[in-house]
Amino acid sequence: MTTLGIAQPLARYAAYRRVGDFVFLSGVIAVDPASATIVKGYADIPDAAATLLGRSGEFSTDIKEGPILAQSWYVLDRIRQTVEAAGGQMGDVFKLVQYFRNLDHFPHYSRVRKLFFTEEPPVSTVVEVSAMLPTADILIEVEATAYLPAPH
Amino acid sequence: MTTLGIAQPLARYAAYRRVGDFVFLSGVIAVDPASATIVKGYADIPDAAATLLGRSGEFSTDIKEGPILAQSWYVLDRIRQTVEAAGGQMGDVFKLVQYFRNLDHFPHYSRVRKLFFTEEPPVSTVVEVSAMLPTADILIEVEATAYLPAPH
Amino acid sequence: MTTLGIAQPLARYAAYRRVGDFVFLSGVIAVDPASATIVKGYADIPDAAATLLGRSGEFSTDIKEGPILAQSWYVLDRIRQTVEAAGGQMGDVFKLVQYFRNLDHFPHYSRVRKLFFTEEPPVSTVVEVSAMLPTADILIEVEATAYLPAPH
Amino acid sequence: MTTLGIAQPLARYAAYRRVGDFVFLSGVIAVDPASATIVKGYADIPDAAATLLGRSGEFSTDIKEGPILAQSWYVLDRIRQTVEAAGGQMGDVFKLVQYFRNLDHFPHYSRVRKLFFTEEPPVSTVVEVSAMLPTADILIEVEATAYLPAPH
Amino acid sequence: MTTLGIAQPLARYAAYRRVGDFVFLSGVIAVDPASATIVKGYADIPDAAATLLGRSGEFSTDIKEGPILAQSWYVLDRIRQTVEAAGGQMGDVFKLVQYFRNLDHFPHYSRVRKLFFTEEPPVSTVVEVSAMLPTADILIEVEATAYLPAPH
Amino acid sequence: MTTLGIAQPLARYAAYRRVGDFVFLSGVIAVDPASATIVKGYADIPDAAATLLGRSGEFSTDIKEGPILAQSWYVLDRIRQTVEAAGGQMGDVFKLVQYFRNLDHFPHYSRVRKLFFTEEPPVSTVVEVSAMLPTADILIEVEATAYLPAPH
Amino acid sequence: MTTLGIAQPLARYAAYRRVGDFVFLSGVIAVDPASATIVKGYADIPDAAATLLGRSGEFSTDIKEGPILAQSWYVLDRIRQTVEAAGGQMGDVFKLVQYFRNLDHFPHYSRVRKLFFTEEPPVSTVVEVSAMLPTADILIEVEATAYLPAPH
Amino acid sequence: MTTLGIAQPLARYAAYRRVGDFVFLSGVIAVDPASATIVKGYADIPDAAATLLGRSGEFSTDIKEGPILAQSWYVLDRIRQTVEAAGGQMGDVFKLVQYFRNLDHFPHYSRVRKLFFTEEPPVSTVVEVSAMLPTADILIEVEATAYLPAPH
Amino acid sequence: MTTLGIAQPLARYAAYRRVGDFVFLSGVIAVDPASATIVKGYADIPDAAATLLGRSGEFSTDIKEGPILAQSWYVLDRIRQTVEAAGGQMGDVFKLVQYFRNLDHFPHYSRVRKLFFTEEPPVSTVVEVSAMLPTADILIEVEATAYLPAPH
Amino acid sequence: MTTLGIAQPLARYAAYRRVGDFVFLSGVIAVDPASATIVKGYADIPDAAATLLGRSGEFSTDIKEGPILAQSWYVLDRIRQTVEAAGGQMGDVFKLVQYFRNLDHFPHYSRVRKLFFTEEPPVSTVVEVSAMLPTADILIEVEATAYLPAPH
Amino acid sequence: MTTLGIAQPLARYAAYRRVGDFVFLSGVIAVDPASATIVKGYADIPDAAATLLGRSGEFSTDIKEGPILAQSWYVLDRIRQTVEAAGGQMGDVFKLVQYFRNLDHFPHYSRVRKLFFTEEPPVSTVVEVSAMLPTADILIEVEATAYLPAPH
Amino acid sequence: MTTLGIAQPLARYAAYRRVGDFVFLSGVIAVDPASATIVKGYADIPDAAATLLGRSGEFSTDIKEGPILAQSWYVLDRIRQTVEAAGGQMGDVFKLVQYFRNLDHFPHYSRVRKLFFTEEPPVSTVVEVSAMLPTADILIEVEATAYLPAPH
Repeated sequence: MTTLGIAQPLARYAAYRRVGDFVFLSGVIAVDPASATIVKGYADIPDAAATLLGRSGEFSTDIKEGPILAQSWYVLDRIRQTVEAAGGQMGDVFKLVQYFRNLDHFPHYSRVRKLFFTEEPPVSTVVEVSAMLPTADILIEVEATAYLPAPH
Repeated sequence: MTTLGIAQPLARYAAYRRVGDFVFLSGVIAVDPASATIVKGYADIPDAAATLLGRSGEFSTDIKEGPILAQSWYVLDRIRQTVEAAGGQMGDVFKLVQYFRNLDHFPHYSRVRKLFFTEEPPVSTVVEVSAMLPTADILIEVEATAYLPAPH
Repeated sequence: MTTLGIAQPLARYAAYRRVGDFVFLSGVIAVDPASATIVKGYADIPDAAATLLGRSGEFSTDIKEGPILAQSWYVLDRIRQTVEAAGGQMGDVFKLVQYFRNLDHFPHYSRVRKLFFTEEPPVSTVVEVSAMLPTADILIEVEATAYLPAPH
Repeated sequence: MTTLGIAQPLARYAAYRRVGDFVFLSGVIAVDPASATIVKGYADIPDAAATLLGRSGEFSTDIKEGPILAQSWYVLDRIRQTVEAAGGQMGDVFKLVQYFRNLDHFPHYSRVRKLFFTEEPPVSTVVEVSAMLPTADILIEVEATAYLPAPH
Repeated sequence: MTTLGIAQPLARYAAYRRVGDFVFLSGVIAVDPASATIVKGYADIPDAAATLLGRSGEFSTDIKEGPILAQSWYVLDRIRQTVEAAGGQMGDVFKLVQYFRNLDHFPHYSRVRKLFFTEEPPVSTVVEVSAMLPTADILIEVEATAYLPAPH
Repeated sequence: MTTLGIAQPLARYAAYRRVGDFVFLSGVIAVDPASATIVKGYADIPDAAATLLGRSGEFSTDIKEGPILAQSWYVLDRIRQTVEAAGGQMGDVFKLVQYFRNLDHFPHYSRVRKLFFTEEPPVSTVVEVSAMLPTADILIEVEATAYLPAPH
Repeated sequence: MTTLGIAQPLARYAAYRRVGDFVFLSGVIAVDPASATIVKGYADIPDAAATLLGRSGEFSTDIKEGPILAQSWYVLDRIRQTVEAAGGQMGDVFKLVQYFRNLDHFPHYSRVRKLFFTEEPPVSTVVEVSAMLPTADILIEVEATAYLPAPH
Repeated sequence: MTTLGIAQPLARYAAYRRVGDFVFLSGVIAVDPASATIVKGYADIPDAAATLLGRSGEFSTDIKEGPILAQSWYVLDRIRQTVEAAGGQMGDVFKLVQYFRNLDHFPHYSRVRKLFFTEEPPVSTVVEVSAMLPTADILIEVEATAYLPAPH
Repeated sequence: MTTLGIAQPLARYAAYRRVGDFVFLSGVIAVDPASATIVKGYADIPDAAATLLGRSGEFSTDIKEGPILAQSWYVLDRIRQTVEAAGGQMGDVFKLVQYFRNLDHFPHYSRVRKLFFTEEPPVSTVVEVSAMLPTADILIEVEATAYLPAPH
Repeated sequence: MTTLGIAQPLARYAAYRRVGDFVFLSGVIAVDPASATIVKGYADIPDAAATLLGRSGEFSTDIKEGPILAQSWYVLDRIRQTVEAAGGQMGDVFKLVQYFRNLDHFPHYSRVRKLFFTEEPPVSTVVEVSAMLPTADILIEVEATAYLPAPH
Repeated sequence: MTTLGIAQPLARYAAYRRVGDFVFLSGVIAVDPASATIVKGYADIPDAAATLLGRSGEFSTDIKEGPILAQSWYVLDRIRQTVEAAGGQMGDVFKLVQYFRNLDHFPHYSRVRKLFFTEEPPVSTVVEVSAMLPTADILIEVEATAYLPAPH
Repeated sequence: MTTLGIAQPLARYAAYRRVGDFVFLSGVIAVDPASATIVKGYADIPDAAATLLGRSGEFSTDIKEGPILAQSWYVLDRIRQTVEAAGGQMGDVFKLVQYFRNLDHFPHYSRVRKLFFTEEPPVSTVVEVSAMLPTADILIEVEATAYLPAPH
């Protein structure tokens, strides 16, 4: 699947809203809005990303780790694109609220997050919830907030 | 039950707080603070609202759909009243975090939300949680944030 | 266990971030970052705090109520320390999002919270989630936001 | 998928049997006998039907409501085709026994049923069962009986 | 609650349909259509019926047995009224399909049924299902068919 | 166990009722009315039937497949006997409603049914229910209807 | 099975102990100590008792109600025999503690108990527990205490 | 609801029995025998008692703690009344057996019990059981025994 | 852990009460009141006791059997000490009520009990309950009653 | 039941196969191949074996421990017979893989195994699985391998 | 899917290893290593195999039986290919360890196995486990060992 | 904990047995036989091993991944030591049977295994079982076989 464009809402809501010096983003999940398909593994993200995430090429390993690693990358990359569309960059994101289906996935997500936040890390809240939209295939949802003070 | 007044806290917390140009609201659930009763269906909201939400008048249908539709309306209407008490209006709400007991209820809520946000929609985060206060009858909780820049 | 110092992150994230006039804190749980141990009861908080919280000295009562009371105190005290490290005080906290493992714990937490917010209370959102980091011993996580307008 | 032809049995049984003045139909589920695929959403029924059923075009809503709405339409349309193959029309159906996997789906089905029975409604029995053939994707099965007195 | 009148549909379906020499009834549950309330125990049926069913006057016994005995009586009495409205009588009912929430209730129902069918008993099918409309309070649903040959 | 005689009711209901040109049968389960014992495997049906059903003589296979195969045969054979007692034959049965405890048993039942319906098959409804009378050993219940027009 | 003799312990404990003016009995379950078999229904108690308890002769009813009714009778009759062996009679029993596997069985037990206590009833405690010795077939255990003042 | 009079049995058993120097009470639950209603919270006990038990006036707290606190008070007060009816007083109670639905309720009950036993406490046994009569609303049952030596 | 002294209450209740010629004990669990720690295996009882109970020295066996055997010994030994503190001895105990978390533990307990009751055994009631105080580590609770007639 | 003869396969497989210097046995369960009945307790093994295993003669103890002890003995004795049929003896068995339904049974099995391996013990693997053939009554399956070097 | 080639490991392990006169195979599951897809039914094996296994052509039957029959065939055929690659043939396999997700599948597997072992059958161990690699679609895993004495 | 010495049995079985040219090992779990403690995380293995396995130093990550990584390393290292005690080396191990509590752990184990088998990998069987000895803390058990032909 392709990953072009910013995060498009799956229902009637905004991908982001600038208010004052802040940019608030909607919670992002790993669904491609263009094709309305859910990211389920390495096959649904670019090869370079899969390689970066440590795709082993062994079926049993990749089918276990692929879903959370690919969704983590996809979600954070969509946040990056969205913040850039708002005129900022990933380093402007100062807060993340992260919802998991299974907190055993946290170490995988944590490693991916470090790839996106190489400097000052954001504040972070992490909880495990029962479910997220649209289906049980969704393993993670991330809500980001960025600080983009307008030039005076 | 009556729906007058702004959302009064069920415990010791503020219904809203203005800080800088923002108004932050507590999470709102469908409990009438005056009578301390929970909204459980069409009978607990005004007739006009029930009609607007599509009350069918058929017992089996209304007993299934009524609870989530009535709670969705009640919660969003309370947010509207609270924002107005703070000097703003529904269009000033730019962010919603929505907690569900069962995400199968989302389409019903989504239709009600469109009635309240007819112009630029807010950013939105949606998750399903295990429970909310005060009892298992609560199907939805919505936390809203509004932007109300003070006149200079 | 000791309770000195501000909340140190358990993974790679910031304990707090100041952006504009706001201070955003990461979600706080009852884990001592120095010793990497989880607060499990009255024995893990200072004696004065345990007394304040109503430790009965009866084993069966304290083993039931101790965990949530001690974690509630520890988490709110860590928030206090962190806000103070950012140059503010507890009264500057205007918003709390509170995640519980079991909402039957709410009355206990609510009593502890009043000890920390003696004046204008913050806005508040409360939900029950499936789990939090790092283990099932964690009963509560609190995410706080403070308003600390910079002097001009 | 295509929806041509009358309901073909998925095992060795008759789609309908005329006995005396009656036409008895087998229980109908939303499986296309030609392709042996199960109707899982709006994509598996004609566009005009999906529009009639209220397809919103929003992913999260359609993925929740689509399955029961599409299956309801498909099943009732197959009953219509089968009765017509037997020489009658939908208005000749005087009895329905309806099996659901989840009775929360009833309001959706009920709205679809009204589209097919615009005049005198049939008698109706509704229960929720554990499962139906062939897989757990099946949400509803409807058994219809029609009265088609032979001309004398 | 009152028990006047024939079984009125709770949704859009017919209480009964005469076709040829037969009268087919919809499945009947213990809901009063006038007040839209569910029969939950002896208090919801006439005193004479409760006495006939063996109300003990002891709280613990009546709260356990009352729901199924009262619903059994109510459902069969509604069937009787409906058949009479169609011009027949209980003895004309020749077939019953009975759905239970819990088959441990069968002996209670069976005793009540004998009160209504004192002569030639009908054919009978009995199964336990997961749920019935409209709520989990419903313990039994009965679908009856009567033979009422028209005079020539 | 012996299999003589027609299906005798296990409670106060009729084994079959002739109304007009139809013969309606009660739901039949695999219980021998004479000995009040449940058919649990090949040992409870005639040897010839067990051989016909494919008894392997291997313990682990027969203990797994025997219960559903033997009950399927017993139930259909009882229907055959009952229809014959009513003056018809198996080919007059035009409708079956089949209740299963576990639909994974369907292929076994389906093969047995073909042995009994060698010509025009009946219409058929199949669902999985929670339980049937009298105990959890019952795996299948079949309700049959036959058309036996009286000679004029 | 036979019901002669007093309750013999199934392990190393006393059937009863006289201390002062009191006779304390061990908890009694429906196991015949001579044959080490568990009372499972009407077939395991004398015919006269089964008739007294309302055996219907209908398989489905008796298999549902028989176990609790027969165990209730057996347990209370064993208590009667044991108290008589201690020199008293049923009327000397002044206290009962009754453990159930399923409190839905209470009305059945309650009716049987009235047959044994026709005059001043004992004090009574009733709870539902997870299990009793020796197997899950045991539905009830009753612990009785009698007052048998020694003549002076 | 009113709380006059001694504990009246809900079935056919004695509220208490004097035997020798002892008074044995039946297990007491929080059901008002006059109105046959179950105590579910502060609203069902006198205001003075609710105040004594720490009613907070905050809905979310009181709806969580109210049921066990109110039932604990009601049950112990009924025991007090019953012992007084037998000619004694609460201090004569020397033994309690306490059954809980959920032992997390123990600290609440323990605090209430201290209000009733201000001098020498009784011996005590505490267990958690699956259920008590009459319904799942019952959270606690207490069986008391008193020593009331007759004057010589 | 040490095992000196009589059973001290874990909450506000008496370890035993003498009334008339009887000594009633509170239910005893395997918690050391001095250290407030729960007996979890052979390591928490004296070596001589562990040897007596059959400690095998093999890890997998001792970790499975140790908890129930050590708790059984500890509880009965505490009862012995308590009765001796009241002026009696183990042989004066005439009644035991025994609560288990899992009745599969009964044979282990039963063997330990014989070590403590070498002459006339007490009457005995045994049930499995959901839980006991203070935590899920408690496998057994025993309530004993002794007869100690005062010398005249 | 009798225990003569070597382990006969319950399906089409070999009881043992000699390959090179090794004898490989099929997994053995406690089913008597002659009578096709499952060993369920002491009654199904020789009296001498039951005595050796510690049959207590107390119903509650023997019904709890009997199944695993009797199956353990039966399975190991069948292995002994099979190895002897292959020309070896129990001491030639050098490897065991042991599958349990419930590892709480391990100490019982372990004691029985020592009776069969009095000298050099075999290597051993132990796991708990979900089920074994043919039914849920089977508690243990043991796969043995022996070394029987052919004389040169 | 194609079935060419020997079993290729899905992770880093050998498909087989020859040691001395033996060939040990890895556990084989029904995954095509070339396409990394799981065999889910008749459509994933050659038509001739599906016909041999009894494909009925009826959707409901084939969707129930197809998965285990196709996986059984695929796994055994892969073992055959692997042994042939090692220089032997199916008849050289003398031992099988078979893991099932659901032992109700055993009769189907057993019939397929007979097709592959027409002469002396291997020794066999069968257990049901919780899961196998890579996903829950895998119903069976078979570990084979062959004896292939090298020519001298 | 220390990791000296070869794997000592936790019950009465051999750590390994040499038969012919083979060395068979017992299933190995991560329990230190000297201290009888279970390996639960990085703290229980040497620092160098923890570093090699990727210990992150972040509490939430290490508490999630540590248990399976440390147990995997410990178990394989014990196998290495045991094979060396038998005169061989890790490369002589040609077969592994691996039991998991949760197959989501497989990728972690797989990476550790590659550290121990750098040349020709062994054959491998992997299944998920319900439990292993001695407690639920055990996540993995590995049974190894080595080929060590004796010099001639």
